[in-house]
Amino acid sequence: MKIAIIGAGALGLYYGAMLQRSGHDVQFLLRRDYTAIREKGLTVTSVNGDFHLPEVRGVRAAANLDPADLVIVGLKTFHNDQLPELCRPAVGKNTALLTLQNGLGNEERLAATFGDDRVMGGVAFLCSNRGEPGTVHHLGQGAIRLGEFRGGASTRAEETAALFRKAGVPCEAVADLAKARWEKLIWNIPFNGLCALTQRPTGGLLASAAVQQEVEAIMREVIAGANAQGLSAPIDAAEVIPRLLEVTETMGDYRPSMMIDRQEGRPLELDAIYGRALSLAAARQVDMAKTRLLFALLQLGEES
Amino acid sequence: MKIAIIGAGALGLYYGAMLQRSGHDVQFLLRRDYTAIREKGLTVTSVNGDFHLPEVRGVRAAANLDPADLVIVGLKTFHNDQLPELCRPAVGKNTALLTLQNGLGNEERLAATFGDDRVMGGVAFLCSNRGEPGTVHHLGQGAIRLGEFRGGASTRAEETAALFRKAGVPCEAVADLAKARWEKLIWNIPFNGLCALTQRPTGGLLASAAVQQEVEAIMREVIAGANAQGLSAPIDAAEVIPRLLEVTETMGDYRPSMMIDRQEGRPLELDAIYGRALSLAAARQVDMAKTRLLFALLQLGEES
Repeated sequence: MKIAIIGAGALGLYYGAMLQRSGHDVQFLLRRDYTAIREKGLTVTSVNGDFHLPEVRGVRAAANLDPADLVIVGLKTFHNDQLPELCRPAVGKNTALLTLQNGLGNEERLAATFGDDRVMGGVAFLCSNRGEPGTVHHLGQGAIRLGEFRGGASTRAEETAALFRKAGVPCEAVADLAKARWEKLIWNIPFNGLCALTQRPTGGLLASAAVQQEVEAIMREVIAGANAQGLSAPIDAAEVIPRLLEVTETMGDYRPSMMIDRQEGRPLELDAIYGRALSLAAARQVDMAKTRLLFALLQLGEES
Repeated sequence: MKIAIIGAGALGLYYGAMLQRSGHDVQFLLRRDYTAIREKGLTVTSVNGDFHLPEVRGVRAAANLDPADLVIVGLKTFHNDQLPELCRPAVGKNTALLTLQNGLGNEERLAATFGDDRVMGGVAFLCSNRGEPGTVHHLGQGAIRLGEFRGGASTRAEETAALFRKAGVPCEAVADLAKARWEKLIWNIPFNGLCALTQRPTGGLLASAAVQQEVEAIMREVIAGANAQGLSAPIDAAEVIPRLLEVTETMGDYRPSMMIDRQEGRPLELDAIYGRALSLAAARQVDMAKTRLLFALLQLGEES
């Protein structure tokens, strides 16, 4: 299958490399890593075993992308204003698009340009970061849950999930993508923001009982916001919260992407992860009080 | 009148200097500024006009304090475990104690050692900080509201207020000290913590409409907590909040004491300003949700 990766940060590089390794024809839209990957290929260091792809098809300009069967989007959401133009050259008559970006509002952006029926979305539970140019580190996890933007089950989503699984990526198709997106926010909203704000990794937060209590309280806010959205089934806080905290403990001193973005002076994915969730919750009369405070404080670092 | 100043930070130095200038016999318990003040006296730079006191009675050890008529406490609350021993040498048969420390729980500490009937408390609305040793900067404001720990009106509180007024310090005696303490927390809880956490001055916070909304929301939480304490009269949020914001705007880029404490690597006055207020509110079933998040995040910097 011909696959294009738009937004080759840690997530795009890792999943693209896994798909290429399993035999697909993968093309990467590259920026920072372009020269290194053209010269030396792409190296993945992974908890599941390192590997190297000596030949990788990378382009620097979207215009040089070939039309693909599947476009996978890993672009940082603060670049979403460029998203349609970056994808367009890779979108042919029968191309499907799958956004694995963080937060809410990404499928809508693609659908507005390419039509609802082309668009799938997915949430990736991936601990990864970029090393030196040409190298991506897979630190743990990596499962994807994906589904149709329009909702409901589809053969296409099932086939895409199977494609990932054959490439060694745990993946399941879900009928309620909105629910899957909110479920990921239950983790992202507390940990991304608190780690970025305090510049402490997840383990540093959970070392404080008082902060862990606040993490749990924020998770309850997100679940309340989610359960007001008419999901296919409500999210059960009593089941989800202890499970997420347990998983987070296994991650040790993990630095979420937003913490790294701030460390490296990049913008934060605030609208996708906070702004839209707060608006959707407020529209259903759910006040996410602590989340709103966190969102306001994170915005303070963004003026420049 | 013989006055002892225990805890000669910016607040203690400023009020002590004002009282000495108006003719009182003031003795300061000094640490950082001891040598400078012994050599050069004490300089006050003030929005109301600078002045210099060439001769200042400073001691380095509490044992060298003389018994005083009035002991004024300006010690940082994180040193409160030493408070009784620091005051004791200055407390004679008829000595009154007035704590101008931040937050809640300070009068209780003095009363446990010296008896309820000796103790007054006050809240100081003072913008000040220390300059080089021997110099204190009075940046604005400075009014004090003081009253009896046991509550109610008293001649002693009225006389003490008059003493400050004669020294050029706006001061009034109040019958409900608990209410005055909570009223000050309406400002301290949002601004001290948010400035310390974000390392931005008050003006930097108020420049963001989103953060100003959060400041107002935190103020409403504090008022709800206060009004659950059986004060002599409820605090009116609609009157207080706009007034406090207006005053804060006149302060420009003010750095609250807690922000400076963190910048300079000192502990923060978290128990006095946050912990006790949260406990008292929780005991009356008031959940100060945003305040609790702020408190937890501030504790993160305190482990060392």
